[in-house]
Amino acid sequence: MKHNARTERTRVKRLPKRGIYDQASIHRILDEGLVAHVGFVVDGQPYVVPTAYARDGERLLLHGSAASRMLRTLASGADCCVTVTLTDALVLARSAFHHSMNYRSVVVLGRARAIEDPAAKLEAFRLFFEAVIPGRWDTVRLPNQKEMDQTLLVEIPIDEASAKARTEGALDEEDDYALPVWAGLIPLALTPAAPVPDDRLFDGVTTPDYATHYTRKRGR
Amino acid sequence: MKHNARTERTRVKRLPKRGIYDQASIHRILDEGLVAHVGFVVDGQPYVVPTAYARDGERLLLHGSAASRMLRTLASGADCCVTVTLTDALVLARSAFHHSMNYRSVVVLGRARAIEDPAAKLEAFRLFFEAVIPGRWDTVRLPNQKEMDQTLLVEIPIDEASAKARTEGALDEEDDYALPVWAGLIPLALTPAAPVPDDRLFDGVTTPDYATHYTRKRGR
Repeated sequence: MKHNARTERTRVKRLPKRGIYDQASIHRILDEGLVAHVGFVVDGQPYVVPTAYARDGERLLLHGSAASRMLRTLASGADCCVTVTLTDALVLARSAFHHSMNYRSVVVLGRARAIEDPAAKLEAFRLFFEAVIPGRWDTVRLPNQKEMDQTLLVEIPIDEASAKARTEGALDEEDDYALPVWAGLIPLALTPAAPVPDDRLFDGVTTPDYATHYTRKRGR
Repeated sequence: MKHNARTERTRVKRLPKRGIYDQASIHRILDEGLVAHVGFVVDGQPYVVPTAYARDGERLLLHGSAASRMLRTLASGADCCVTVTLTDALVLARSAFHHSMNYRSVVVLGRARAIEDPAAKLEAFRLFFEAVIPGRWDTVRLPNQKEMDQTLLVEIPIDEASAKARTEGALDEEDDYALPVWAGLIPLALTPAAPVPDDRLFDGVTTPDYATHYTRKRGR
């Protein structure tokens, strides 16, 4: 399938058992993530820039200021790499060597395209917004023309992608299991805390459910 | 100062007020982070790979399998970019346009060098380990020669670096403050949960404090 093309460039080269190429797993990781790290090259120098993103079907959406060097570079059609990583646990083994980290990550290689048609751009903005904070778009003041002009929206097809994950407990050398060393996982997760209302909130406005119960662990 | 060189390449180009170049702020972000995203170029294609890292003074330490393409590319002296991002909050404004994210990030540009001297390599491994889980190195089975041979440790000088941060609340257009729209922050943090002991723990071994009270928010 094109959306899963396991090309030489995305094949997981080391520990191939950790490679994941099926569409559903890739989508699940992308949907849980919130920040992507985008790699691009300027004058031979690689740069890696963090940015919010959203998945819509078989494309990633990025948005930001039309003045952003990263977005302008991407919109020009430069090769890029978008990586999303979920940090799930520290893995503490009995030997220093076998310490590890549990994680799930997706790498998407490709080229971006600016979304310029006004209706498509507004719709991409809405999809982006709803992916980050479901239920909020219809409650806020929508972007005016000036704001849309200041915003660049780009899409990157998810057609050369792979995921990688480590999800096990500690794996020690057999001899080391006899050592009186604590081993196990320290789970980690990007966790939302109680919303902090703005100082200038309009009288009587209460905190919406999508803020109180914010989570990235959802189906879409 | 060399460690803070604000070069044309690391100057924060957009919203320069968000740029941070002082050493202490850069170190604080690097010390709180756990996973870096490393950018490098192979055949013109940028790749971004997540990896654990540690700061030791004015250098970053990365380690992993000697078979890792990322580490081998770095050890060969390729230009790289190491980015660390802390995701602090979703910023919900009254207008769609002014939604944002609070974050702190550091970008380090440079070239890595493999640490090959056996004593320096073991010491770098220890420093790396202690930065990730302080207090544990002295309790585990230390690496043997075969394990050290399978491990690549590289250092990257922190001498071309910049940080960027957004730390404010929602900033709306003046007219929009009259709208009855909830605004504020949803704080986010990479949060440790209760440690999960390994199934094959040696009898009587109890969970150490550094696991029960794991935190990245510490001075070093």
